[in-house]
Amino acid sequence: MLAKVGLLKASELRAIVGALERIESEIEQGRFKFDIADEDIHLAIERRLIALIGEPGRKLHTGRSRNDQIALDMRLYLRDEIAGVIALVAGLRATLIRLARRHVATIMPGYTHLQRAQPVTFAHHLLAYVEMLGRDRERFVQAAARTAVMPLGAGALAGTTLPLDRRMVARGLGFKAVTANSIDAVSDRDFVVDFLSAAALTQVHLSRMSEEIILWTSTEFGFAALPDEFSTGSSMMPQKKNPDLLELIRGKTGRVIGDLVAMLTVLKGLPLAYNSDLQEDKERVFDALDALKPALDLFAKLWTALRFDAKRMRASAGGFALATDLAEYLVGRGTPFRQAHEIVGAIVRETTEAGRTLEDLSIAELRQHSSAFGADAIAMLRAENSVARRTIEGGPAPSTVKRRLKELGGR
Amino acid sequence: MLAKVGLLKASELRAIVGALERIESEIEQGRFKFDIADEDIHLAIERRLIALIGEPGRKLHTGRSRNDQIALDMRLYLRDEIAGVIALVAGLRATLIRLARRHVATIMPGYTHLQRAQPVTFAHHLLAYVEMLGRDRERFVQAAARTAVMPLGAGALAGTTLPLDRRMVARGLGFKAVTANSIDAVSDRDFVVDFLSAAALTQVHLSRMSEEIILWTSTEFGFAALPDEFSTGSSMMPQKKNPDLLELIRGKTGRVIGDLVAMLTVLKGLPLAYNSDLQEDKERVFDALDALKPALDLFAKLWTALRFDAKRMRASAGGFALATDLAEYLVGRGTPFRQAHEIVGAIVRETTEAGRTLEDLSIAELRQHSSAFGADAIAMLRAENSVARRTIEGGPAPSTVKRRLKELGGR
Amino acid sequence: MLAKVGLLKASELRAIVGALERIESEIEQGRFKFDIADEDIHLAIERRLIALIGEPGRKLHTGRSRNDQIALDMRLYLRDEIAGVIALVAGLRATLIRLARRHVATIMPGYTHLQRAQPVTFAHHLLAYVEMLGRDRERFVQAAARTAVMPLGAGALAGTTLPLDRRMVARGLGFKAVTANSIDAVSDRDFVVDFLSAAALTQVHLSRMSEEIILWTSTEFGFAALPDEFSTGSSMMPQKKNPDLLELIRGKTGRVIGDLVAMLTVLKGLPLAYNSDLQEDKERVFDALDALKPALDLFAKLWTALRFDAKRMRASAGGFALATDLAEYLVGRGTPFRQAHEIVGAIVRETTEAGRTLEDLSIAELRQHSSAFGADAIAMLRAENSVARRTIEGGPAPSTVKRRLKELGGR
Amino acid sequence: MLAKVGLLKASELRAIVGALERIESEIEQGRFKFDIADEDIHLAIERRLIALIGEPGRKLHTGRSRNDQIALDMRLYLRDEIAGVIALVAGLRATLIRLARRHVATIMPGYTHLQRAQPVTFAHHLLAYVEMLGRDRERFVQAAARTAVMPLGAGALAGTTLPLDRRMVARGLGFKAVTANSIDAVSDRDFVVDFLSAAALTQVHLSRMSEEIILWTSTEFGFAALPDEFSTGSSMMPQKKNPDLLELIRGKTGRVIGDLVAMLTVLKGLPLAYNSDLQEDKERVFDALDALKPALDLFAKLWTALRFDAKRMRASAGGFALATDLAEYLVGRGTPFRQAHEIVGAIVRETTEAGRTLEDLSIAELRQHSSAFGADAIAMLRAENSVARRTIEGGPAPSTVKRRLKELGGR
Repeated sequence: MLAKVGLLKASELRAIVGALERIESEIEQGRFKFDIADEDIHLAIERRLIALIGEPGRKLHTGRSRNDQIALDMRLYLRDEIAGVIALVAGLRATLIRLARRHVATIMPGYTHLQRAQPVTFAHHLLAYVEMLGRDRERFVQAAARTAVMPLGAGALAGTTLPLDRRMVARGLGFKAVTANSIDAVSDRDFVVDFLSAAALTQVHLSRMSEEIILWTSTEFGFAALPDEFSTGSSMMPQKKNPDLLELIRGKTGRVIGDLVAMLTVLKGLPLAYNSDLQEDKERVFDALDALKPALDLFAKLWTALRFDAKRMRASAGGFALATDLAEYLVGRGTPFRQAHEIVGAIVRETTEAGRTLEDLSIAELRQHSSAFGADAIAMLRAENSVARRTIEGGPAPSTVKRRLKELGGR
Repeated sequence: MLAKVGLLKASELRAIVGALERIESEIEQGRFKFDIADEDIHLAIERRLIALIGEPGRKLHTGRSRNDQIALDMRLYLRDEIAGVIALVAGLRATLIRLARRHVATIMPGYTHLQRAQPVTFAHHLLAYVEMLGRDRERFVQAAARTAVMPLGAGALAGTTLPLDRRMVARGLGFKAVTANSIDAVSDRDFVVDFLSAAALTQVHLSRMSEEIILWTSTEFGFAALPDEFSTGSSMMPQKKNPDLLELIRGKTGRVIGDLVAMLTVLKGLPLAYNSDLQEDKERVFDALDALKPALDLFAKLWTALRFDAKRMRASAGGFALATDLAEYLVGRGTPFRQAHEIVGAIVRETTEAGRTLEDLSIAELRQHSSAFGADAIAMLRAENSVARRTIEGGPAPSTVKRRLKELGGR
Repeated sequence: MLAKVGLLKASELRAIVGALERIESEIEQGRFKFDIADEDIHLAIERRLIALIGEPGRKLHTGRSRNDQIALDMRLYLRDEIAGVIALVAGLRATLIRLARRHVATIMPGYTHLQRAQPVTFAHHLLAYVEMLGRDRERFVQAAARTAVMPLGAGALAGTTLPLDRRMVARGLGFKAVTANSIDAVSDRDFVVDFLSAAALTQVHLSRMSEEIILWTSTEFGFAALPDEFSTGSSMMPQKKNPDLLELIRGKTGRVIGDLVAMLTVLKGLPLAYNSDLQEDKERVFDALDALKPALDLFAKLWTALRFDAKRMRASAGGFALATDLAEYLVGRGTPFRQAHEIVGAIVRETTEAGRTLEDLSIAELRQHSSAFGADAIAMLRAENSVARRTIEGGPAPSTVKRRLKELGGR
Repeated sequence: MLAKVGLLKASELRAIVGALERIESEIEQGRFKFDIADEDIHLAIERRLIALIGEPGRKLHTGRSRNDQIALDMRLYLRDEIAGVIALVAGLRATLIRLARRHVATIMPGYTHLQRAQPVTFAHHLLAYVEMLGRDRERFVQAAARTAVMPLGAGALAGTTLPLDRRMVARGLGFKAVTANSIDAVSDRDFVVDFLSAAALTQVHLSRMSEEIILWTSTEFGFAALPDEFSTGSSMMPQKKNPDLLELIRGKTGRVIGDLVAMLTVLKGLPLAYNSDLQEDKERVFDALDALKPALDLFAKLWTALRFDAKRMRASAGGFALATDLAEYLVGRGTPFRQAHEIVGAIVRETTEAGRTLEDLSIAELRQHSSAFGADAIAMLRAENSVARRTIEGGPAPSTVKRRLKELGGR
């Protein structure tokens, strides 16, 4: 661009480009000598450039400032990293969708307040995570759009009198937009906050997954078993298979929330335009990426590797978890909801006290509580039937879940 | 909807609607008797409904759970509040744009590291905030879109066997979409995090504004004066005019960041589906709105009321802040940037040591440092000329700022 | 004090004190008329005082500023509130100690990674919380000491030329120390951060308790049952007993962490001395107290009300959780630890594959793996014996726990 | 200890100690081969030990678990690091005290709301920071006391049946206390939170210092100049001297607050006893130390290196900043405070409107507003006199500051 607008001669351009390529390979091969006196990477490269080609090297920094340059570097880096994160999110979603396809008919208890509430299909439960990750993806896409704006030309804060072609630079770097205000361009790290917000919430989602699998792989739940390569033993308790990796992912949630807090705190009360406080952006982003990327990658593998105990899940899904279905049966027969609620409450109490469970009841026993119970009420007391009838949009019935899986298919 | 799908008779519908309207007016008139035994607002209303109309009242809760109902309530509330916040952001942007129109030619020093760096136009400085607020607006719009999704029909977590028409409910409530997964629908508070993230960053922007105006209204800067209605006196120091309101806004940044942290922490490690931890969402949202809305409103008034001292601003913008222009002048004449930098560095040092400033220099003195200085170099040593030449896109030149103001006009 | 140093006449003192008492009762009886024009409570009271007694009322504010006055108010308030919190912490500790006394011999599984690890006594588990609360108490005591320092006399920031007797004021208000620097006195809110740090960590401890009881009261664990008055039903699932209160306490952890973040953020980058940002301290403290105090109080009641299923706990504590004891048995007989670890690992694997558990093994079977097993090895395979032998200081053996309970007795 | 209680033979002990010393030197010389298969440092060392000495090496891990071992490592590390931090805090305090000694008579404006309020001595201002750092020191001492408790013997969570001598180990490692509960011992990271809380508040204090020096070194304030070695130039603006280091320190406040948030979030909702989430403690502590230690060290040097412009400070300290003194003069003569406040307010208004300042007033002019003004009132209108009379304990008078410096002397 500098050559095109006449600030570099063609020969100078060639010399600079050639030397920069050489410097790149020096750095890649570990042969580049860094010197603390260079202050930063920008000056280190310029010094080497001048050593290699003399005069033209002194033109490298023409029309730019380290303030707009570092804003650019951060935007380039984050744009590419967010693209990588979006791919990892997509990979994990695809894994969950594939797993859900295999468990359209697997029955498990749905929980509220960690109490068994109603039976659902395992596929439906997995698709709840697919929804969360879908929102995460959207957030990263929006963060990427606010990141991919080209700041060069802002100079230190006040633009430049030189006739730079900012749009040409933007095109060359693959940006669709340029920053609209030079002061904002150098003092803005909002796009970093955008990324960290999205990262923190995604990591929170992974912590929820971790928590559930930790519960499921406990002896008490027993819904799933961790394969050896995803668990560790105990130096003192040879029988243990510990979900270390899931605990680490859950633990790293603190870190990513902390990174977000750090960046917001850095920006609080900062006058315009550039202040060196902004340098804190880099390590916070690296730190968040170091937590998030391996966790997304690992979960994509771990969900596939988990061995689920469908029998145990099913066994936990019946009994009193069917009470709601019984109440809805009555509502369907015209009993007001509140009254149906009370009738079923009485049935549950009585059955519990007798040491029995709902599945043990006969139609005659049901009818002692309400004459609205018909012969078909007994069918409601099987989890499979109950789930199959929950065909409302967004519901857990196998048929509904299959429809949703079809919708999700192409993504 | 319940009537349309046959779960309510027309007469029941009429009775319920009539009684609900009566209850609404009882509440509005403060005549509604709340009873702690009712547990929550849902049951309080239902109890009163049953007291008023008997049997049909017991059908009110048909096909819904407090879990999907509270998710709906929160979404309705936040959807409307975000719309209000977007309007306030727009109002503040409009104020800044109007103010910028009056200061297209006002010269002030641009700062980096709180050191005077280069002269800019005051309008350009104000438009930096317009950019920030533009991004804030976008974030709230995106948060609103993820909020405006209708969850009813999710039941406690597992949908319902009743033939509810979710799309009809969504249309009636003004939602364009319905939630796609019943488990996610009741356990999701991501939209609350979305709002709080956007609110925290907006409040950070307001803290930056506050900081700058506090600096500008100090005796040392003296760029602006607070009118009496926006400052407070001191009980012990009768001469003081304190920027209390701006300090309060800056201080409230901590609160909104804290609200965001709180909500992320609540969600961390929470298993699906509904857990009562989620009830924490309400107060955090109220708290953030209580900080953000008055601050946005107040700033819209305060920017208009501030009295700026354009003379003082101008006087602070000259001198060594013109060094960059001088260097760029040389670059435009073919001097390599790094060399131009060194030449001007020498001029600055020499001038400083002589107790003079750049504006005092003659062309002859400049030419002692470089023969590339032409007669027109002196013109660069006036801030007005320097700024006027920074016409690069996104730059501070009055002509460039006018163009940007025209683009912003319609918003 | 003002009278003693001669700034008030005895008659003026009598008039002021009498009128202040009258104003106090006006406020208590709701008869005091607040006027927005008064700016704050200080000026409201002074205005009323002047209305009541004229001239002497105008001397009320002698030698003080709202800056040192509000610092004092906050310190008085927080000093008393921390004392209340310390009492609540003590109450909860006492409850846990009483409960532990009843469960010195109750066996339960100790967990690591939410996997059953080794049997412990329930009393020992409860005493882990007593330790945490002991540290919490210490933190509050230390925070209270830094709070109870008297700031009056600092004036707006620079002290006063009037001959105030600060030590007399301190004595009168029950403070042992006075602030040592007037600038620090008005700009310091570190004592608020001290309190919020201690509160956040205490609330985190309560969240850990909550999590455990939520797990224990799940059907899967079944170690405890919530009495009705500490659980809520479900509007749709009549069989549910939800641990709402515990979830709310766990959720409120986010709030208190958020309050701490808020206060630290407020103080970040604030120049000396007083700035109105500091006003944010009040609501953050109220908010944290509103979460913490009821939670401490509730837990003191809830631990007593929980019904524990000692049989179920015991049944979960045997089996492979005894592997470590078996390994230590071998170590006691001279087998190197790492080798003992491997031998027991082999026993566990073999036993698992045979669908049996450790308690099923005969001495002959053990000896097939190591001749170091003597006849007494079988005794190690009962949880009671295993726990009883863990008499190391800080260990779970009933005898050790009893000793610890005796030590804790007097507190 | 293992030898003393009979778990190791003397020959085994010698072999182990000798080999561990060899391994230590292998690690120090970079000759130790780490293998990912070793899982962690504990197993890596044990493996090497067994390779070197065979059988006795397999006894290394006797009576301990990685759970109590890692708790010990963290406590040892943090105990030593906190000692280092306390020394750095002491060093910075000593620097500030030395600097204060040189500026006992230097007059500067004291600020509230960043408005000039009243003159103070520079020494007094510096001692405000000495107070803050004194509290920081106290907090670190208290955190160190809770850190220096010896956890070994807790095993994985349940102690051990082996006859370990925990008190002997504690003595050997320089700990005064041992943990009182084995479950708490392995699940407790409260001491990490203690450290991070103290670190966050200390860093906040450094951010306040940074903010003030950044203000003082601005052209507008001009109270101080940064020597070249503590400032950086600009690549585009050769005249700039930027306070980068101070901005970096201010920015790092976000990081340390973030570290604290991270650790609290990690602990939230964690059931007992050990969970791998706790591994997050290490990097958060390293991160905080990396911010805090160099900042404390740098400030100790920077305060000494700053060049203060006492003349400029003094010039900013007079004028209307003396209004309070004038009011107090009247109070001393019996004028009620509120009335004195009004009289001086009128004087300030009138003087301002006349374009004059308080120092310009004659005794006759003062007496036009109140006959209480005596001949000595004029003396109040010199900052030196005003400050000298503020001899109240904790006040800024040179005599008072000297007394305080004497008290601080020995620390």
